[in-house]
Amino acid sequence: MNEAMTAVDLAPQATTESSLHTLETPCLVLDAARMERNVARLRGRMADLGVQLRPHLKTAKSVEVARRVMDSPHGPATVSTLKEATLFAAAGVRDIVYAVGIAPAKLAQVLALRAQGIDLAVVLDTVAQAEAVAAASREAGAPIPALIEIDCDGHRSGVLPTDASALLAIGKALEQGASLRGVLTHAGGSYAARGAEALQQCAEDERRSVVVAATILRNAGWPCPVVSMGSTPTAHSASNLTGITEVRAGVFVFFDLVMAGIGICRIDDIALSVMATVIGHQRDKGWILVDAGWMALSQDRGTSKQAVNQGYGVVCDIAGKPYPDLIVSDANQEHGIITVRPGSSSTLPDLAIGDRVRILPNHACATGAQHGRYHVVRGDSSTLEAEWPRFGGW
Amino acid sequence: MNEAMTAVDLAPQATTESSLHTLETPCLVLDAARMERNVARLRGRMADLGVQLRPHLKTAKSVEVARRVMDSPHGPATVSTLKEATLFAAAGVRDIVYAVGIAPAKLAQVLALRAQGIDLAVVLDTVAQAEAVAAASREAGAPIPALIEIDCDGHRSGVLPTDASALLAIGKALEQGASLRGVLTHAGGSYAARGAEALQQCAEDERRSVVVAATILRNAGWPCPVVSMGSTPTAHSASNLTGITEVRAGVFVFFDLVMAGIGICRIDDIALSVMATVIGHQRDKGWILVDAGWMALSQDRGTSKQAVNQGYGVVCDIAGKPYPDLIVSDANQEHGIITVRPGSSSTLPDLAIGDRVRILPNHACATGAQHGRYHVVRGDSSTLEAEWPRFGGW
Repeated sequence: MNEAMTAVDLAPQATTESSLHTLETPCLVLDAARMERNVARLRGRMADLGVQLRPHLKTAKSVEVARRVMDSPHGPATVSTLKEATLFAAAGVRDIVYAVGIAPAKLAQVLALRAQGIDLAVVLDTVAQAEAVAAASREAGAPIPALIEIDCDGHRSGVLPTDASALLAIGKALEQGASLRGVLTHAGGSYAARGAEALQQCAEDERRSVVVAATILRNAGWPCPVVSMGSTPTAHSASNLTGITEVRAGVFVFFDLVMAGIGICRIDDIALSVMATVIGHQRDKGWILVDAGWMALSQDRGTSKQAVNQGYGVVCDIAGKPYPDLIVSDANQEHGIITVRPGSSSTLPDLAIGDRVRILPNHACATGAQHGRYHVVRGDSSTLEAEWPRFGGW
Repeated sequence: MNEAMTAVDLAPQATTESSLHTLETPCLVLDAARMERNVARLRGRMADLGVQLRPHLKTAKSVEVARRVMDSPHGPATVSTLKEATLFAAAGVRDIVYAVGIAPAKLAQVLALRAQGIDLAVVLDTVAQAEAVAAASREAGAPIPALIEIDCDGHRSGVLPTDASALLAIGKALEQGASLRGVLTHAGGSYAARGAEALQQCAEDERRSVVVAATILRNAGWPCPVVSMGSTPTAHSASNLTGITEVRAGVFVFFDLVMAGIGICRIDDIALSVMATVIGHQRDKGWILVDAGWMALSQDRGTSKQAVNQGYGVVCDIAGKPYPDLIVSDANQEHGIITVRPGSSSTLPDLAIGDRVRILPNHACATGAQHGRYHVVRGDSSTLEAEWPRFGGW
């Protein structure tokens, strides 16, 4: 962990400002009612399918949010950095998968967390990593559990599910001190799927890929207890999870415009927004300028290849209700340019200098990461319920 | 200021790790030799042209960097947020322009900083803002100095330079308690200019626009002492700054791939990089995977519309020397996918699991913002000279 982040940053802080009308802008607003609805929706789905949910905490990076999305204060959970592992462990989470391919230099920190009683598992897809994990385990006299990453759709890392020789070579290398806990995959390709049928196919491909890999390993004598898959689109689309022991998902807790564009949620489900203040107009051009640029909104343009390009975000009133066809169409570091969507017959709302808007994000993980805390409201109320810190860095 | 940032975070911290080979990845590396060369280059240019440099500290957001780029520990300086103003003021900077259009709700904080003896000026381009600034000044019995923003190239905010009625109306509104300090513009359009001649034209258009506006105001009786322009491309291209009293620029201190693509610097001038570790391969596809994704690199794709698309960044060895045609061609949150540039005959370097690379950013402001500190080296040495904190948020 190379950031100046201490436990004190994780403690809930008193809310000194009482309303969205008095908060300084730009700032990050979280609608707890929508979040709770989103969490209940996926948890209900997983319960119906009889599969454990292992939420990915990389989206929220917040202890307060984590506690509302995990089965118990102890987990299980997924993280994308060892800093997340460390800070969530400090907050009581005991069952963690670090779901990014392990670098050998990070194993000392993994061992240190495991020595504290944290069941932290690593992910890998090469013999070289397996050998490093086994060697570190032997040296510490403490076997590190590892999941072999499976490539279900060619979008990133992982061993092909039918590549038995690679799977067995990794299993064999792990056997020299570490422990093979199972297999894991992520259908990142599902973000580009369109339509319920395509999404169901992504989910089924994802499921089958890890089940096939697990079968190869089990046939070779490894028990392979964990068979892990997950992405928000496939978690919400899968109808058959036979052979899967757990599902990972992150962005479902907040949702965002990319997920709405895929059809996994409605715009009205998006729990996260950036509040901004009007600081100018270019009336001849139909522009309203606000004090939220790409620093506050992120530069994620994930809807630019979807059917509806939402620019840098959809503009809502202070209660969180979208204005018709109003988007942030361009952004500088601290300036956002709001316009009516090209081709729309809607008119620009009459927003004066000092008026406030809320902007829904393309990608909740990216937009959240630009901020140090959540200002929590409920529904269309402007009263602040809480202020929850979030962390960043590595 | 709505972030948990305290003065202690700004204190230089002891370097506990001594080399690029032992730092945790991903992390932000700053080559002090290149930075010093870049700073000397623009300072020399401004001295030759006889114009004050008012560096924009939004790029670095670091007291240590600020001290190396300003004329004196007291400034002058430009900032993009009131948090920057507050933290730099706490570190001794006294002469600050907050160069984003003022929101009325931020005036209390402006007055509080001014009451501490900080000469903080605001920027505006509407009568409504001028009235709010004048009213806040009257109420406090302390005139806030304001610069009228001029729109030199249609890319963002500002009054058209020849719109005398708007300029005079704003001047008149300010007169009711505030003070008109001058005019300011930013040639954001210069980022899209191609070739030395086009850049010189941007600089000349930028210069002329504020000089014209200042003349209108002076002819109406306002002294308009400050005539401020600036962007890194135009600051490095202007040959005539007649009538300009100060130039603002930010990214010149680090440079980046966008600036190299415009032709304002060489790739070898880029002082900032993200160090990453190899965590995997997809050999059939010619991919190397590293532990720096868009969270560490930012999602800025500013070179995607330039002649050479650098993906998410140019990949160098640990000493900072670029591999031929090697770029980060795609990125997930914590994964970068390194490939040879499409169409290149170069071969993928033989990088093993655990090897380290340094990735040059498209946009230094965006990439820096993803990190909490600079790890400072000099030239091709891997020895760490210092660790400088940087801040984010609002």
